[in-house]
Amino acid sequence: MTFKPLHDRVLVRRVDSDEKTKGGLIIPDTAKEKPSRGEVIAVGPGARDENGKHIELAVKAGDHILFGKWSGTEITLDGEELLIMKESDILGIIEDKEIAKAA
Amino acid sequence: MTFKPLHDRVLVRRVDSDEKTKGGLIIPDTAKEKPSRGEVIAVGPGARDENGKHIELAVKAGDHILFGKWSGTEITLDGEELLIMKESDILGIIEDKEIAKAA
Amino acid sequence: MTFKPLHDRVLVRRVDSDEKTKGGLIIPDTAKEKPSRGEVIAVGPGARDENGKHIELAVKAGDHILFGKWSGTEITLDGEELLIMKESDILGIIEDKEIAKAA
Amino acid sequence: MTFKPLHDRVLVRRVDSDEKTKGGLIIPDTAKEKPSRGEVIAVGPGARDENGKHIELAVKAGDHILFGKWSGTEITLDGEELLIMKESDILGIIEDKEIAKAA
Amino acid sequence: MTFKPLHDRVLVRRVDSDEKTKGGLIIPDTAKEKPSRGEVIAVGPGARDENGKHIELAVKAGDHILFGKWSGTEITLDGEELLIMKESDILGIIEDKEIAKAA
Amino acid sequence: MTFKPLHDRVLVRRVDSDEKTKGGLIIPDTAKEKPSRGEVIAVGPGARDENGKHIELAVKAGDHILFGKWSGTEITLDGEELLIMKESDILGIIEDKEIAKAA
Amino acid sequence: MTFKPLHDRVLVRRVDSDEKTKGGLIIPDTAKEKPSRGEVIAVGPGARDENGKHIELAVKAGDHILFGKWSGTEITLDGEELLIMKESDILGIIEDKEIAKAA
Repeated sequence: MTFKPLHDRVLVRRVDSDEKTKGGLIIPDTAKEKPSRGEVIAVGPGARDENGKHIELAVKAGDHILFGKWSGTEITLDGEELLIMKESDILGIIEDKEIAKAA
Repeated sequence: MTFKPLHDRVLVRRVDSDEKTKGGLIIPDTAKEKPSRGEVIAVGPGARDENGKHIELAVKAGDHILFGKWSGTEITLDGEELLIMKESDILGIIEDKEIAKAA
Repeated sequence: MTFKPLHDRVLVRRVDSDEKTKGGLIIPDTAKEKPSRGEVIAVGPGARDENGKHIELAVKAGDHILFGKWSGTEITLDGEELLIMKESDILGIIEDKEIAKAA
Repeated sequence: MTFKPLHDRVLVRRVDSDEKTKGGLIIPDTAKEKPSRGEVIAVGPGARDENGKHIELAVKAGDHILFGKWSGTEITLDGEELLIMKESDILGIIEDKEIAKAA
Repeated sequence: MTFKPLHDRVLVRRVDSDEKTKGGLIIPDTAKEKPSRGEVIAVGPGARDENGKHIELAVKAGDHILFGKWSGTEITLDGEELLIMKESDILGIIEDKEIAKAA
Repeated sequence: MTFKPLHDRVLVRRVDSDEKTKGGLIIPDTAKEKPSRGEVIAVGPGARDENGKHIELAVKAGDHILFGKWSGTEITLDGEELLIMKESDILGIIEDKEIAKAA
Repeated sequence: MTFKPLHDRVLVRRVDSDEKTKGGLIIPDTAKEKPSRGEVIAVGPGARDENGKHIELAVKAGDHILFGKWSGTEITLDGEELLIMKESDILGIIEDKEIAKAA
């Protein structure tokens, strides 16, 4: 990986929701304000607590996540559109194995 | 469960209030600004205090709760409409056994 | 009681002020912006301090209180209109015994 | 006293400034934005510091104070118009003995 | 002194700048937004730190100070127009002896 | 270096993105709101934690970084246009060796 | 010096940038929003941390600094126009010896 996020930032690749996946997550593209799905590519070392120690992030590279549709800043890395967002923009982690495989 | 909320977030299934339930909670659908009722599906590990430790949430999966009508972000999980909200959006827990059974 | 408030929230039953009570509290219904009177029905465990411990509320069930007229969220519980508000919305406790009896 | 303020709130009786008092405080009624004078009737236990301990108030019942003209919430207690305000709305304490007597 | 400021408040007498003073401070009356000069009459015990201890003020009675032209609340004490302001409204202390004498 | 940033500020030289670099970062000049690339020239000692100790910055002179397009204040030093920004304006560090060489 | 800034305030004399200085700092007078250059005349004892101790300032009298063009409050001291600003308004210190001499 060529990019190291700072602090509590996370580098994310947007994942198109597969509307046909059985038993999986469905987020129609036309839905407004619905969260988007992505895969974590790289994470920062975490923000610092008041003693200056890093608070480790709750997500790690490879995690499939949901995040607010308008979260993050778009960057182009190696010709690929990615997103840099704060961990607090992440709503949660998708743990269904079938989804993980489909991704 | 296939979705793990982060931090102090809670995954909630909206419950239609049953207006005929005796001795139960009644929230007419036409009421404006009245809180909604839901069932907790999954909870995050809690926000972190200033020492980086998780502060355990006060609700758990299965709890019947009231929350502000406009709280949370809608997501579709396994074809079901759910809500992700912060614990602070939850007003309280309904503990009436009769209601719990009716749900 | 079937409802347990979270954190520093308090469940309150609005009490109509009795304008004829001698030596008691008088809040004419026409007064604007004047605080309202209520009875505490249930209290939450308190907010948490920075060590994650609950800070016990200063009011308890049965207390007669004054609160800002526009404080709280209305809910209907067992067919009764109640209010959920934060402890910080409560101005103080009425301790006059005569009032307590009249209520 | 029949009313116990919560937290860092103070119950205050507004005192009309006596414009003829010698060597005393003069606040003409027509002055705009000038602070008002009052007498403290009751005080709360104080706000809590981050360890959950009460921080005792710097004023006590009987103190004559100045406060911002628009501070506080009006309540009617035993037929008397009083004010509930936060200690931080109080500018200072008048300690002139002559004034204390005149009041 | 008949007035005791609370917390980090300071009682100040506005001093007209003497435009003829040699080697002194000159603040023409027509200057807009320029700070004003005053003399400290009384100081509060200081705000409290998070352990509830008073943080002593950096100014004391008798100090000649500069403060923002629009800082503070005007009060009339013993027929004299004074100002109550927060210590944070004070820009600094004038230490020139000649000015001190001229004042 | 002739300029020492204070606190958590960083001195940055803006780097034109090379749109032809293979396997490198591509940020078209016409892209709106996309982050810019720069090289860190000098860093401050870091902000202070609540004990007054410096929190060392996560970037150092020579690092290639991405930052929000509108971050920082432009200064001219030795005839060169540079930027002073806060560390929090920096999104992350580019660690690809090829990019480092191309710069 | 006749003026002692309070807290984290700094007394600054604005320095006209010399556009002819070789190898020095150039800030054309017509540039908008560009930072200004100044010399520190006096510094306060520093703000207090949460234990009430002063946090020493990072600049000292004699330092040549850059600061935001619109920072600070103008005062006239001994007939000279000076600026009082907070340390946080200072972007950094110019350490080039040639500039220091030219000033």
